[in-house]
Amino acid sequence: MIKTDILIIGAGPTGLFTVFEAGLLKLKCHLIDALPQPGGQCSEIYPKKPIYDIPAYPEILAGDLVDRLMEQIKPFEPGFTLGERAQILDKQEDGSFVVTTNKGTRHHAPVVVIAGGLGSFEPRKPQIENIADYEDNGVAYMIKDPEVYRDKKVVIAGGGDSALDWAIYLADVAAEVSLVHRRNEFRGALDSVEKASELAKLGKIQLFTEAEVKALHGENELKSVVIKHKDDSKGETYVETDFFIPLFGLSPKLGPIGDWGLEIEKNAIKVNNAKDYQTNVPGVFAIGDVNTYEGKLKLILSGFHEAAVMCQYAYQLINPGKRFVMKYTTVGGVEGFDGTKKEAKKEVVQSIL
Amino acid sequence: MIKTDILIIGAGPTGLFTVFEAGLLKLKCHLIDALPQPGGQCSEIYPKKPIYDIPAYPEILAGDLVDRLMEQIKPFEPGFTLGERAQILDKQEDGSFVVTTNKGTRHHAPVVVIAGGLGSFEPRKPQIENIADYEDNGVAYMIKDPEVYRDKKVVIAGGGDSALDWAIYLADVAAEVSLVHRRNEFRGALDSVEKASELAKLGKIQLFTEAEVKALHGENELKSVVIKHKDDSKGETYVETDFFIPLFGLSPKLGPIGDWGLEIEKNAIKVNNAKDYQTNVPGVFAIGDVNTYEGKLKLILSGFHEAAVMCQYAYQLINPGKRFVMKYTTVGGVEGFDGTKKEAKKEVVQSIL
Ligand SMILES: Cc1cc2nc3c(=O)[nH]c(=O)nc-3n(C[C@H](O)[C@H](O)[C@H](O)COP(=O)(O)OP(=O)(O)OC[C@H]3O[C@@H](n4cnc5c(N)ncnc54)[C@H](O)[C@@H]3O)c2cc1C
Ligand SMILES: Cc1cc2nc3c(=O)[nH]c(=O)nc-3n(C[C@H](O)[C@H](O)[C@H](O)COP(=O)(O)OP(=O)(O)OC[C@H]3O[C@@H](n4cnc5c(N)ncnc54)[C@H](O)[C@@H]3O)c2cc1C
Repeated sequence: MIKTDILIIGAGPTGLFTVFEAGLLKLKCHLIDALPQPGGQCSEIYPKKPIYDIPAYPEILAGDLVDRLMEQIKPFEPGFTLGERAQILDKQEDGSFVVTTNKGTRHHAPVVVIAGGLGSFEPRKPQIENIADYEDNGVAYMIKDPEVYRDKKVVIAGGGDSALDWAIYLADVAAEVSLVHRRNEFRGALDSVEKASELAKLGKIQLFTEAEVKALHGENELKSVVIKHKDDSKGETYVETDFFIPLFGLSPKLGPIGDWGLEIEKNAIKVNNAKDYQTNVPGVFAIGDVNTYEGKLKLILSGFHEAAVMCQYAYQLINPGKRFVMKYTTVGGVEGFDGTKKEAKKEVVQSIL
Repeated sequence: MIKTDILIIGAGPTGLFTVFEAGLLKLKCHLIDALPQPGGQCSEIYPKKPIYDIPAYPEILAGDLVDRLMEQIKPFEPGFTLGERAQILDKQEDGSFVVTTNKGTRHHAPVVVIAGGLGSFEPRKPQIENIADYEDNGVAYMIKDPEVYRDKKVVIAGGGDSALDWAIYLADVAAEVSLVHRRNEFRGALDSVEKASELAKLGKIQLFTEAEVKALHGENELKSVVIKHKDDSKGETYVETDFFIPLFGLSPKLGPIGDWGLEIEKNAIKVNNAKDYQTNVPGVFAIGDVNTYEGKLKLILSGFHEAAVMCQYAYQLINPGKRFVMKYTTVGGVEGFDGTKKEAKKEVVQSIL
């Protein structure tokens, strides 16, 4: 059982910044995310695109924003349960919570913060009859650790950025990479398309366009895929492989959170925005894109402010009756749980000459 | 009469970022500030100190934060009335407002946003009987345009960063710089103290410590100051000068805003934080440090979020019945009033090979 002060569901920008605000109050955080990496929409949907409305960043790539947040929270040593979906919320007799993921990992905390954005990112799966039989036995819908594919044969399907970028990356790692796409055209950043082109010319990526993986074979584990061509005259191609990775995008689904007894409106969680961003379940807060109230803006900067306010109230719940005197970071510095301390240079008081 | 869509009182970080959020909604802004430069507390009190809790900035100097905000809002061409205090708020029959400064500059706008922080920065003045007679005739409490002092004789008083930094700066500009301080010790950044030391040794700054300016002389305009030494045996020193600039710090005072019929609590303006950050006077909003509500955090990031929310409602007041479809900056780009356009690189759709 993982124990922490604040359990955060969702490691998007809002969840990440919560770690910082909690850390200033000496509260430890652990984050759960269905994605294999932190950053939420910024990492999954548009890591290479610029955002222009982050205060004091005239321009920042979404992926860089996530990197900066990760750097900022590092001193507060957040824990992560990645690639797992928070499934069950159990209120304990003492008012604390146990949250269990779809993989059975259990987390215990006095306060739960849902920073779940538009929902848990779930893969779009191709329609192949027996695909479920191979999940975790050769079929994967996202790549958590590319080392798993070292010197293996891999078939990737998809025509967007993830399919391109992983095909490029694995070309250097895997024994064999095939890329299968329904159309002739790929949609992605120019440099990704160019790089994939180059690798295809060199024979480092085997390309099947206007084609689809239609069947999977193998006993207990995947052994080969069958590729069907649009041009009937080409018939079918059998490709021996250790892995089949369809990367058709992930789409967010509110999912199990919808069944936790929280007041839901417009597919989002109602909170008390006049005060603490708490939900109708005491001890459960909701911040960032996942919450709703009159005038809510689903913007990254909203989640940041909501996190700061919410942490103050979480502190009171966790330390009833104790008063925390807020100090400006400029004045008090930042003391990490890892022993680091950042602080402003002291002014000198000295005579001239 | 200056006309604008949103008149912002206070050019601190909150007021500045409001220009950006308003600009996204195609609304123009004009800012009034009592200080000669934008940035509020960040510029006036701690420009060279690091802030650690600006989201996605593990560390940023307060002065750099202001520079980044100025860069971010540049495409929206904000107007500035600097070095003047907003004094009178007049509601017009049509519901719009005229705001007049202490220097008589008049501004007209349908919406007024008070982003006044802890109040208008007002100089601490030394106790010299006839000092008021010389204000604007040789006595200045802040430096707006250093060129005014080119080839002139200047006496600066004070022992902190501003006194040190301006003495250093003017040593190269003015004909003569004297620095008068009550104590022997100065309090400032190490490099400022060292630099002032060096200039004093070179005779480019005349130093009077354990001394105070006690009297001012001159008909119609300042001609000389009398410096009294702590050590009585040293008597008094007459220094001929064109300017006397006491830099004893500026302290914020809510001031005239307190008399505008706004609901005040704890020296701050009550607002409806559950919705739009409007005050009890319709059309007048208050955001950033200057407002108060249950759980208010006087943090820079709070002002940013409040600005974004408030601008949406200001838009509705200014364009009744019109609906603004919010687009992510990443998706819609940023179109400046200056004709510039920033936008994400388009994805390519092309075949490989
Ligand atoms: C193309 C695009 C452009 C955008 N441009 C801008 C912009 O310019 N400016 C701006 O401010 N905003 C922009 N946004 C919106 C911005 O990305 C979101 O406001 C922001 O990501 C919200 O952050 P969050 O942390 O609240 O949620 P998210 O980023 O959605 O992260 C939530 C995370 O929670 C996880 N999660 C949810 N439920 C569970 C569960 N049960 N178990 C485990 N994990 C779970 C999800 O997997 C996800 O990773 C844009 C969005 C898109 C898609
Ligand atoms: C030493 C110090 C360290 C700090 N450290 C941090 C930190 O680490 N993190 C953090 O988030 N915050 C910190 N703060 C607080 C932060 O600076 C404020 O929250 C922020 O400046 C508020 O911004 P604002 O724009 O609302 O108001 P301000 O910065 O106060 O700006 C308001 C402006 O309005 C002007 N004004 C007011 N009334 C009038 C009028 N009638 N006419 C004309 N002009 C007027 C004032 O002159 C002023 O320039 C710190 C503050 C100090 C002093």
